[in-house]
Amino acid sequence: MSLVVVGSVAFDSVKTPFGAVDEVLGGSATYFSTAASYFTDVSLVAVIGTDFPEKHLTFLKSRKIDIDGLERVQGRTFRWKGEYGYELNEAKTLDTQLNVFQTFRPKLPESYRDRKVVFLANIDPDLQREVLEQVKQPELVACDTMNFWIAGKRESLIRTLKLVDILLINDGEARELSGEPNLVKAARAILSYGPGTLIIKRGEYGALMFREGRIFAAPAYPLEAVFDPTGAGDCFAGGFMGYLANTMNFEESNIRKAIIFGSVMASFNVEAFSLDKIKSLDYGEIRGRYEEFRKLTHFEDLTS
Amino acid sequence: MSLVVVGSVAFDSVKTPFGAVDEVLGGSATYFSTAASYFTDVSLVAVIGTDFPEKHLTFLKSRKIDIDGLERVQGRTFRWKGEYGYELNEAKTLDTQLNVFQTFRPKLPESYRDRKVVFLANIDPDLQREVLEQVKQPELVACDTMNFWIAGKRESLIRTLKLVDILLINDGEARELSGEPNLVKAARAILSYGPGTLIIKRGEYGALMFREGRIFAAPAYPLEAVFDPTGAGDCFAGGFMGYLANTMNFEESNIRKAIIFGSVMASFNVEAFSLDKIKSLDYGEIRGRYEEFRKLTHFEDLTS
Repeated sequence: MSLVVVGSVAFDSVKTPFGAVDEVLGGSATYFSTAASYFTDVSLVAVIGTDFPEKHLTFLKSRKIDIDGLERVQGRTFRWKGEYGYELNEAKTLDTQLNVFQTFRPKLPESYRDRKVVFLANIDPDLQREVLEQVKQPELVACDTMNFWIAGKRESLIRTLKLVDILLINDGEARELSGEPNLVKAARAILSYGPGTLIIKRGEYGALMFREGRIFAAPAYPLEAVFDPTGAGDCFAGGFMGYLANTMNFEESNIRKAIIFGSVMASFNVEAFSLDKIKSLDYGEIRGRYEEFRKLTHFEDLTS
Repeated sequence: MSLVVVGSVAFDSVKTPFGAVDEVLGGSATYFSTAASYFTDVSLVAVIGTDFPEKHLTFLKSRKIDIDGLERVQGRTFRWKGEYGYELNEAKTLDTQLNVFQTFRPKLPESYRDRKVVFLANIDPDLQREVLEQVKQPELVACDTMNFWIAGKRESLIRTLKLVDILLINDGEARELSGEPNLVKAARAILSYGPGTLIIKRGEYGALMFREGRIFAAPAYPLEAVFDPTGAGDCFAGGFMGYLANTMNFEESNIRKAIIFGSVMASFNVEAFSLDKIKSLDYGEIRGRYEEFRKLTHFEDLTS
């Protein structure tokens, strides 16, 4: 099955203790689509400016990502500049230039409207709903958001949350959205807003899934060389949603597997700047790391 | 098999956002012994002052903890005062009065010297080695330490590490001990100092085990009511070492199970102040939470 994603395509300038890159391909929808493309067909909805080079379009097409919904308008592409310290936990944003993203109103090509799986990356919750209205009969809808919308557009965000099946956010966002410092209580509050499943991303500490009173804890893959965490959350979402779109099985056991595939894609992504690592994986490497997660977490039951 | 532990017995005064307690029973060896007592016989080596009340001795004896090695000397018992914020991650120490602990030189009763499993809680690394020299033929030795010794008695600590099989420390201590911000690299460096197994405790994020090139990741149990994290690391060590002493099986599969039992005991401990929760568990509750950890971490392999 194929998956439609709306989000940003951007140029990132990133500095970490291990190097720096200038105006490389980035953006939530770019990372998401690339990660998801290993599992399913992806239809991308985003906006770029006249400065966006052909080589990046060629790359997206090489990953068989449908870019009919990638609108090009007069002006400059979204730019983000950030820096990480040795902890590599949270980026310090140095500069954000929305440019053409500022007035983005996503329009789905006719061919996208019968997609069954939808991912609304971190954009204005008003726009998230506009996108959703353009999809005829979605079977699975997931979204991301950020502190900017939680603080500034809370009411609209809550309306979006009523329409989604799965919310993926980080722990700080979960605390801010719910007003609860304890994550278990925060999760219960957030599930009461609408989503049946909440996934809390915790960076180097992995992810937690909350659903129908149950919790699943997945670790992050311990890596010895983390170069750049930019896009890790989007790659997590891409692997996660890509696997669900591929299997069209939304039972909890499959959602748990999807979380591991998300963790796998995030772990590859942080091993290099920009999309350098995830642009050319093979499915064997992905399966191999999934199996590594099995070994990483395995312990016997009490009858063994 | 029985287990000998050396560490502190103290009075703790603790304030968290959920309450406060004054001069309650605490100390690394107290938490450790109580947690371990659900799995094996425990022989305690520590020091108390003349102010230590009979009721606490009665409690320790009720847990079948051997207190022949609990020396009582003239003076006041060790006191610690700390406070936690809403994050409940790290205590802010407000006051430490070593009192009789200042001049403590642990002496093992003759009856302790043939113990096969030894835990050296966080004390001066010189004393850790003195204790070890008094044990005839230990089969498993583990130790804890802290930033105070890493910074102030590094050379002595490294000498102790050459003699231990398992080191249990937290992530900040692992980074400080190795000088490496990346935990995988930090672990490799620390294993080169001597211990065959390193366990890194990460509080609410669980624990990581490093051993012979392999890694095991255990989550912490997501709790909705964390009242007081004091002693969680010691309870982890107590459950972990207690289970190993009970089974006397030091293979990796059993070490992984022991890590889950450690996590179980830590999770119970933080649900109440002092030893209030772990002083009266039954083994059914412990097994039940172990099974909860199985459900919490379970995901299928790729052939399912």
